[in-house]
Amino acid sequence: MPRSSKNSSAKGGPATLAMVARRAGVSPQTVSNAINSPDMLRPETLERVHRAINEMGYRPSRAAQTLRTRSSKLIGYGIQPTPASSPVLDRFLHALSQAADDAGYRILLFASPPGGPTLQGYEDLLDQHEVDGFVLSGTERGDPRQAWLAKRGVPFVGFGRMWSGRQIGDWVDVDGASGTDAAVEHLVSLGHRRIAFLGWERGSSGAGDDRAEGWQRAMRRHGLPTRGRRAQSVNDIDAARTAVKPLLDAGATAVIAASDMLALGCYQTLRERGAAPGRDVAVVGFDDSPTAEILSPALASVAQPLEEVGRQCVRLLLARIAAPDAAPERLLLEPSLIVRDSVRAPDSSDAAESDLAK
Amino acid sequence: MPRSSKNSSAKGGPATLAMVARRAGVSPQTVSNAINSPDMLRPETLERVHRAINEMGYRPSRAAQTLRTRSSKLIGYGIQPTPASSPVLDRFLHALSQAADDAGYRILLFASPPGGPTLQGYEDLLDQHEVDGFVLSGTERGDPRQAWLAKRGVPFVGFGRMWSGRQIGDWVDVDGASGTDAAVEHLVSLGHRRIAFLGWERGSSGAGDDRAEGWQRAMRRHGLPTRGRRAQSVNDIDAARTAVKPLLDAGATAVIAASDMLALGCYQTLRERGAAPGRDVAVVGFDDSPTAEILSPALASVAQPLEEVGRQCVRLLLARIAAPDAAPERLLLEPSLIVRDSVRAPDSSDAAESDLAK
Repeated sequence: MPRSSKNSSAKGGPATLAMVARRAGVSPQTVSNAINSPDMLRPETLERVHRAINEMGYRPSRAAQTLRTRSSKLIGYGIQPTPASSPVLDRFLHALSQAADDAGYRILLFASPPGGPTLQGYEDLLDQHEVDGFVLSGTERGDPRQAWLAKRGVPFVGFGRMWSGRQIGDWVDVDGASGTDAAVEHLVSLGHRRIAFLGWERGSSGAGDDRAEGWQRAMRRHGLPTRGRRAQSVNDIDAARTAVKPLLDAGATAVIAASDMLALGCYQTLRERGAAPGRDVAVVGFDDSPTAEILSPALASVAQPLEEVGRQCVRLLLARIAAPDAAPERLLLEPSLIVRDSVRAPDSSDAAESDLAK
Repeated sequence: MPRSSKNSSAKGGPATLAMVARRAGVSPQTVSNAINSPDMLRPETLERVHRAINEMGYRPSRAAQTLRTRSSKLIGYGIQPTPASSPVLDRFLHALSQAADDAGYRILLFASPPGGPTLQGYEDLLDQHEVDGFVLSGTERGDPRQAWLAKRGVPFVGFGRMWSGRQIGDWVDVDGASGTDAAVEHLVSLGHRRIAFLGWERGSSGAGDDRAEGWQRAMRRHGLPTRGRRAQSVNDIDAARTAVKPLLDAGATAVIAASDMLALGCYQTLRERGAAPGRDVAVVGFDDSPTAEILSPALASVAQPLEEVGRQCVRLLLARIAAPDAAPERLLLEPSLIVRDSVRAPDSSDAAESDLAK
């Protein structure tokens, strides 16, 4: 008999639930329901699945069955109202839905009130629907959700670490500091030395402070001064236009911004001054928003691996549901610097000039 | 006793479910569950609601109770994978979640496969979870979903009309033709006459053809020629850069694009030619994406009333659930032209020139 591990036929090994699902043209979850809760299925679907089960001689594992029947297969997720929403979280939600689907789960949305997540939405959802757990996003300093859910024994995973106090529960986050650190490295390799950071207001956002920290540590590693090279702005293009001025006045040849929105403010101020982003001052954004690519010049930006974040969130949540008392798992994923035309080497005269001259 | 209709006290009239919810600090849906399905609530919440009910002397209406108990309070919605997703549909989902929440419903997401919605996702969701109905988006020509759901008696509402064959079921749509018509009107009022349309490929999208149609009818109304003034492109910035060239070569003083993405291609081609959007050629986009506002010059664009679409979708769906056999309701909502710096009057020399000269 020839070896054919890749192309295992029905006779080549026991049929799996996934094989039955493919044969019946339904999802694995539907096969599971046909076995565990047949009254949930419409008769024609049930018949189709039963036919596939018989044809393939499938025998469900008892343990898997027991585990499955207690589950609603629903994951709760709070969605912010439109003005507060971010393209990053929208893309994360798509990735999360896909990852959940792949695992036989669905996302149950509830609207978070404007001004940030509160516990009420979680409490209401727990009262009204059975969910197996929650995925949290937009975690911030003093976020009450993790402790509240942990106290109630509700499984959850955060997209975003705890930014204050002790860490609670599982989370997946992106190493923002590593992203701005990599941006400094790239700019230094091109010859930039006067590299400024345009961030959010200090202390206003854990993620924002983290991004500032990566810039600062990389500058120090290269012996470059950070004093007078950091400006703060709210995440608003007009505020950023004003905030970036002292950095440019002080002769920065490159600006790393905590968001693409802030980078756009930098673009506008440069244009007002008759200067060109890229040619005159290098600009790097954060989040690689859809806008970054279509700007002229295209904006270099630090991209978060959102598909991977979505997959890992679902993986950690399902692991937590299966083993409520296991040790917490926390993942810090690497972002990647997308280099585009907004980043070039500085004018040779600028690069030669000493920092002390300014 | 003073008149105080605005500030009705507990003694001023019968307590409502909403008043009980406020007193108990929970959502109206939770109060409803406390009455209809008390075992769904955690004991402390149930107690809090019961205390509020007693304190306020609330008496639930029997009819409302019966109606509520048969419902899962879940609305299914298929979400596209990331590359195919659009900012418009993301904003719609936020609006839909909020509108559903306001009505005591939740959105249950499932991932649509790349390449467009299929029936499998709907079938799986119906098999696995109880949903009261679906909201469809991304409706296209030959869309099989409406007929499939209608045949099975599953309530649904489309964000988007049927673009071919007979209309099935309820829908809410935005009158795209009215939006491009308004754009022509505005440009004509500024003195433009050579107004071109940069659209998607003819027949590739119902919404795209609708937007072209509005431009065409307004041009005809003003006796302006449309021949040679229409170009087609896929929804890609690079393709649009090429597609817009013959329109500019033929002397268009204004370009209306079927999307902001196409308008951006027009921006780039103008810049390559040393011309400025706004100053040299007026440009109008469609969808008022977040990018439109932050471009330089800011892009005028036709905005869809997505909050209103979300609210109306929920309203029509709940009406359908309550009265499965009622006559279908279809709403065409008006978009609005957001005028920004990319739209100015043409050079007087251009405006004076006859169309025949070109």
